[in-house]
Amino acid sequence: MTRDDARALDRTDPLARLRDRFALPDGLLYLDGNSLGVLPRAVAPALADTVQRQWGERLIRSWNEGWIDAPQRLGAKIAPLIGAAADEVIVGDTTSTHLFKALVAALRHDPARRTIVSEAGNFPTDLHIAEGAVACVEGAALKVVARADLAAALDDDTAVLLLTQVHYKTAERFDLAGWTARAHEAGALILWDFSHSVGAVPIDVTAAGVDLAVGCTYKYLNGGPGAPAFLYVARRLHDALANPVSGWMGHAEPFAFTDAYRPAAGMKRWLVGTPSILAMASLEAALAIWAEVDLTQVAAKSAALFAILATAGAAAGLPCVSPADPAQRGSHISFRHPHAYEVTQALIARGVIGDFRAPDVLRLGLTPLYLSHEDVWQAGEHLRAVIATEAWRNPAYADRNAVT
Amino acid sequence: MTRDDARALDRTDPLARLRDRFALPDGLLYLDGNSLGVLPRAVAPALADTVQRQWGERLIRSWNEGWIDAPQRLGAKIAPLIGAAADEVIVGDTTSTHLFKALVAALRHDPARRTIVSEAGNFPTDLHIAEGAVACVEGAALKVVARADLAAALDDDTAVLLLTQVHYKTAERFDLAGWTARAHEAGALILWDFSHSVGAVPIDVTAAGVDLAVGCTYKYLNGGPGAPAFLYVARRLHDALANPVSGWMGHAEPFAFTDAYRPAAGMKRWLVGTPSILAMASLEAALAIWAEVDLTQVAAKSAALFAILATAGAAAGLPCVSPADPAQRGSHISFRHPHAYEVTQALIARGVIGDFRAPDVLRLGLTPLYLSHEDVWQAGEHLRAVIATEAWRNPAYADRNAVT
Repeated sequence: MTRDDARALDRTDPLARLRDRFALPDGLLYLDGNSLGVLPRAVAPALADTVQRQWGERLIRSWNEGWIDAPQRLGAKIAPLIGAAADEVIVGDTTSTHLFKALVAALRHDPARRTIVSEAGNFPTDLHIAEGAVACVEGAALKVVARADLAAALDDDTAVLLLTQVHYKTAERFDLAGWTARAHEAGALILWDFSHSVGAVPIDVTAAGVDLAVGCTYKYLNGGPGAPAFLYVARRLHDALANPVSGWMGHAEPFAFTDAYRPAAGMKRWLVGTPSILAMASLEAALAIWAEVDLTQVAAKSAALFAILATAGAAAGLPCVSPADPAQRGSHISFRHPHAYEVTQALIARGVIGDFRAPDVLRLGLTPLYLSHEDVWQAGEHLRAVIATEAWRNPAYADRNAVT
Repeated sequence: MTRDDARALDRTDPLARLRDRFALPDGLLYLDGNSLGVLPRAVAPALADTVQRQWGERLIRSWNEGWIDAPQRLGAKIAPLIGAAADEVIVGDTTSTHLFKALVAALRHDPARRTIVSEAGNFPTDLHIAEGAVACVEGAALKVVARADLAAALDDDTAVLLLTQVHYKTAERFDLAGWTARAHEAGALILWDFSHSVGAVPIDVTAAGVDLAVGCTYKYLNGGPGAPAFLYVARRLHDALANPVSGWMGHAEPFAFTDAYRPAAGMKRWLVGTPSILAMASLEAALAIWAEVDLTQVAAKSAALFAILATAGAAAGLPCVSPADPAQRGSHISFRHPHAYEVTQALIARGVIGDFRAPDVLRLGLTPLYLSHEDVWQAGEHLRAVIATEAWRNPAYADRNAVT
């Protein structure tokens, strides 16, 4: 692969037209869009309108002019990205809070089933929140096992199988339909965390029969730092599951101001308190781009970008820990190196931003909406140079205060 | 009281200098700052920097350049408004989520005590969330009684007394120190909801010995629609209470990515997921104003504004349901009228924005930072005219779709 080869791929890239929708800093090769997506150009004007006109001028009246329905409206815009119906997704709260609500609800669904099963090495907050959820349901327990032991761990005590579809570190991707079917065969519900897969790979919760899902919007969806997360609940479960964090925004009549809680119909019952309208406005502007995106084109380009970096990594002698088969991974590539932290810092010093994941992983995000093949080729050349020249041995790169 | 009298008060008002910090719409008399505070002028530039530079240019690096500490940094700015130490307050999540975490933690504090006591007619989400919290702790129960019966309801089964300091409808204010002492005498913890009192009345949690408190920042603090809420935990309880929604941001080492949850020291353990940085930036800009504010001046001006409207209401023959003694109320005034909804609409049609609270209350917020005595006098004149002319009888005002 040469620079010209990469440029040739860019010339026929059907997603190249979307690059201009993003404010990309000059001189930066940003391969960390799987951690924090870049700024869509539409965000600043949307926020200016939200702040100056909606808040500043319309004030409280804006609640009747679009704010109150924002959780449902944004949910409907995320729904097509996961194959859900518009009224099966809601936006607000954090991924962790959605996980808590969904896990406690799942544990209460069938009193004969008391266990959450999940994977060792799952994204930490999934396991941490599961710990918290089991403490809220009498007799409940959390069973965390290695990936190879997950199938055997499912039994007639399993209330819910909690899986993150794309592993945050390795990019390994679970087969959505297969594992959903396995959970159902055991009589359990399934809860998918799509934080590292939404906007990265095609997802069809309806075809797979998924029960519950959560996902982050500040990674591939570019909603902004700490953007509100989404929750999906299959329509067949809308009346059967109750939100344990029963706040007023999920009440059937929040402005009737009654003492007793009565859950709203549909997804609205999953709301808790008042969501940040500024955060919602940023996310809504970012989501507009996705209406024009074909996720099969995203997946195809992601595979091409992966191949470029896999080749560079192999040339540098770095073991790749991400699956070779595109169908079995998400949209990042990870390499193992005993000094991965220093390698990450050396790349940053060269204007290539990826991230380090403890203890020994260099992770590079592949975001087809705004990265060109040439960008990724260039990043690969930097990676080869950092390894070949041992540039990572610079003592300045060993300072461990990064929180990316 | 004449317009000239009001203007005379404005000329000697020590808070009048702060009015220019806010973007007040022309021709609007906004008496709903107790529901959604107006836009501080500092918000737009702060958000522009957060979006364009911090997110757009610095991207993921901004987590190391101020974002990660935002919950503590903003907490330290709210602390003086409630008499807390800087490290006893944290910002993030919604008021409802903070209530849930604090109530479950309080119920688990002493296994011999199983009851949450609260007031009938408390702000709905407090009671709704308390319902949800008791369902998460074995044997726990919620006892909701009339205000007159609260003292008698405290006994050796009371885990926590949950009170909203200023009532959202009537503006009645509980005696902070007195009720805190009563809860403690019964051996219970106290959890105060300051949503309708922070920034409205002087508060000293340290002097009163308060255990736990939550509060909203989009009302008197002007943080923006749905701005993140705060949680206060007295330092003596920092190690003793655990966050039931044990998300990764509350972990002792969130970036060590370990499977097992280990709570952070201090207030950090109360964090759950990643807070919206845009929402935090808006709130931080709004909080800067409070560093210059003397809350005793706020209380004095609030009392003067109240007197103006109380006089107008009395002249119009409207029963006032807010306490006559300033020490026993917050910073709004409420009148009862059988057609309060239509009266509210008639005022809005005249450019006076207050709000309706079911079934029969007209509520007018008194926000001394940006309302002048003349503004409030003018609003009082409109109120008198709407009642005197029965302008509220216009059928257009009966349409009930408001969600303020």
